[in-house]
Amino acid sequence: MTRMSISVKNLKEIVDMLGTIVSEVKFKLEPNGISVTAVDPAHVAMISLDIPKNAFSEYDLDAPDEIAVDLDKVKSVIRLASSNDTIVISKDRDKLRFEIGTIIKSIALLDNNSVTTPRVPQINSDDYVILSKSDLEKGLRAAEDVSDAIRLTLTPESFSAKSTSDSDESEMLLPKDMLKDISCSQPIKSSYPLEYLLKLVKSISSNEDIKISFKSDYPLSIEFSFNSETEPISGKFLLAPRMES
Amino acid sequence: MTRMSISVKNLKEIVDMLGTIVSEVKFKLEPNGISVTAVDPAHVAMISLDIPKNAFSEYDLDAPDEIAVDLDKVKSVIRLASSNDTIVISKDRDKLRFEIGTIIKSIALLDNNSVTTPRVPQINSDDYVILSKSDLEKGLRAAEDVSDAIRLTLTPESFSAKSTSDSDESEMLLPKDMLKDISCSQPIKSSYPLEYLLKLVKSISSNEDIKISFKSDYPLSIEFSFNSETEPISGKFLLAPRMES
Amino acid sequence: MTRMSISVKNLKEIVDMLGTIVSEVKFKLEPNGISVTAVDPAHVAMISLDIPKNAFSEYDLDAPDEIAVDLDKVKSVIRLASSNDTIVISKDRDKLRFEIGTIIKSIALLDNNSVTTPRVPQINSDDYVILSKSDLEKGLRAAEDVSDAIRLTLTPESFSAKSTSDSDESEMLLPKDMLKDISCSQPIKSSYPLEYLLKLVKSISSNEDIKISFKSDYPLSIEFSFNSETEPISGKFLLAPRMES
Repeated sequence: MTRMSISVKNLKEIVDMLGTIVSEVKFKLEPNGISVTAVDPAHVAMISLDIPKNAFSEYDLDAPDEIAVDLDKVKSVIRLASSNDTIVISKDRDKLRFEIGTIIKSIALLDNNSVTTPRVPQINSDDYVILSKSDLEKGLRAAEDVSDAIRLTLTPESFSAKSTSDSDESEMLLPKDMLKDISCSQPIKSSYPLEYLLKLVKSISSNEDIKISFKSDYPLSIEFSFNSETEPISGKFLLAPRMES
Repeated sequence: MTRMSISVKNLKEIVDMLGTIVSEVKFKLEPNGISVTAVDPAHVAMISLDIPKNAFSEYDLDAPDEIAVDLDKVKSVIRLASSNDTIVISKDRDKLRFEIGTIIKSIALLDNNSVTTPRVPQINSDDYVILSKSDLEKGLRAAEDVSDAIRLTLTPESFSAKSTSDSDESEMLLPKDMLKDISCSQPIKSSYPLEYLLKLVKSISSNEDIKISFKSDYPLSIEFSFNSETEPISGKFLLAPRMES
Repeated sequence: MTRMSISVKNLKEIVDMLGTIVSEVKFKLEPNGISVTAVDPAHVAMISLDIPKNAFSEYDLDAPDEIAVDLDKVKSVIRLASSNDTIVISKDRDKLRFEIGTIIKSIALLDNNSVTTPRVPQINSDDYVILSKSDLEKGLRAAEDVSDAIRLTLTPESFSAKSTSDSDESEMLLPKDMLKDISCSQPIKSSYPLEYLLKLVKSISSNEDIKISFKSDYPLSIEFSFNSETEPISGKFLLAPRMES
């Protein structure tokens, strides 16, 4: 029998994060935990999450399985819970069953074949910066009404995020001493679609450090984790570069 | 002279509750207090309230009277007050006059003949359950995006509220030990329109116990009260059953 | 070089206040501070503000200057700041540059010739009343859904604000002992457009006393100030009377 218990807080963060780019996802259940990968319809952004078995207070699985769901339906279940609740999730034939206290809510599972799991491309870069999620979010928010693209620049001494329009300009400049870590041999810069990036960063509720890797005109990779007080749930976000005219 | 003082908190609860089913009501003023009965335009739901004289800090009445008002106008008066204020209400010819501190606001009374007071039907059942308002509200909210009807089931051992659609299902099951009281000789079940029920339950601001009585395919009656810390204001809500296909 | 530092709190109040009647303004920078005057498109309401040099934590000015800006763009900069932040503002050729921590945001300056500074008319009256901003706001809010005009009446003994429609009426009556000061030789009354008055009064965030001067069928003048804990920023609001039929 497939049955697991998870805190509302973690389930909400997982669902909100995936919901920034897709409306339907397929979770892959393995003995050591659950993984999920989603790509947005335009194939610009991708999210992968690894939720280890120990991030669940209960995790029973007879055999590896796949569960495809509509994220909005899971969100409507989460809204019924208080933030400190634990939700018991079990599979009941073609339904996913959620127990929250005295409430039982069942939603239809989607056909596993109707939701494809994207292949995660190999993205590698030796250049990266580690900074707090809140610093990055500030820089992205400042750019929001300036342009729909943001140019990231990494030098051995600093990291900056800049947007320009005909009339306005926004820039966040973080010198090396305001960063947690930096690895850069020579300056690189690349532009990315701002909306995807900002939505993803906003959906990370904790203020953990995040690692951004990129190269000039190359996909961006963000590595982050949450629930680190007990068992970290780790994630990776990939974003295609925006070619500038 | 007709003149009475009431706490903003109580006036707001009375008006919000009646406002869930009607926009105009007629209050009946008697020496021992005020009563009001309202039925929704589709004649599916009915609310009766009894506000005893002692629920008012001041209650002056020369003779029995009737006062018909537009509830939205009373709501706009309440919005001007703070939650701890007392409102002095008096009748001034064809106007109803509200005093809140230094503010006096007068609204037109409606023609008493234009607002009919419905006759309250005789609804009787020996089967009932008493539970906390918050437990009931949780079960109704869980059903909200599943269906527009909710099926209540009462057995000698439990009370449940269940909604189903083609794809989803919601159920709240309260065993006897989670109920304040239960009276049921043999199982009964009946369906009701969810929207009316949920709006009414949401409009009860306190978390007092409420008593639900019904029979199979028979009107539902909810008895509730509020302001019990001083002088209880008691109410009754009647709801026609929804015949299921 | 033109460069000044101001608290987010003060900048927000200045911009919100001016924004109640215009979308573009021209600030006049002088050695002893900044002044600004704006009139709404219909020439019904006017606001003048005097921001003394000492209301800034830093105030560098090479020569008197004028700076014309779109208020919505300044508001979008303010939204990036926390309420306790200080914003450093500098002029950078045809841009206005805002520094908030690690964020630099530059917005295009408007052509100084495109924003005209209105001439402030001479409005004089010996009749006035001084009252708390919150008392006035209560009276105006009570009138909001009654009429679009409010009639102010000042007698040697009281100040009142009254609105009437065919069906409803709203009145705030403040006797002399509930006022901070009053000066009136004989009763005067005049009506004013409510919307402008309410928006301005709402935009004053502090609950300082304000001074209202008027005559029968004559413009209204409101004098107010804020930031009085350090260096007061003083303002004047003028409003044309509404002729009643």
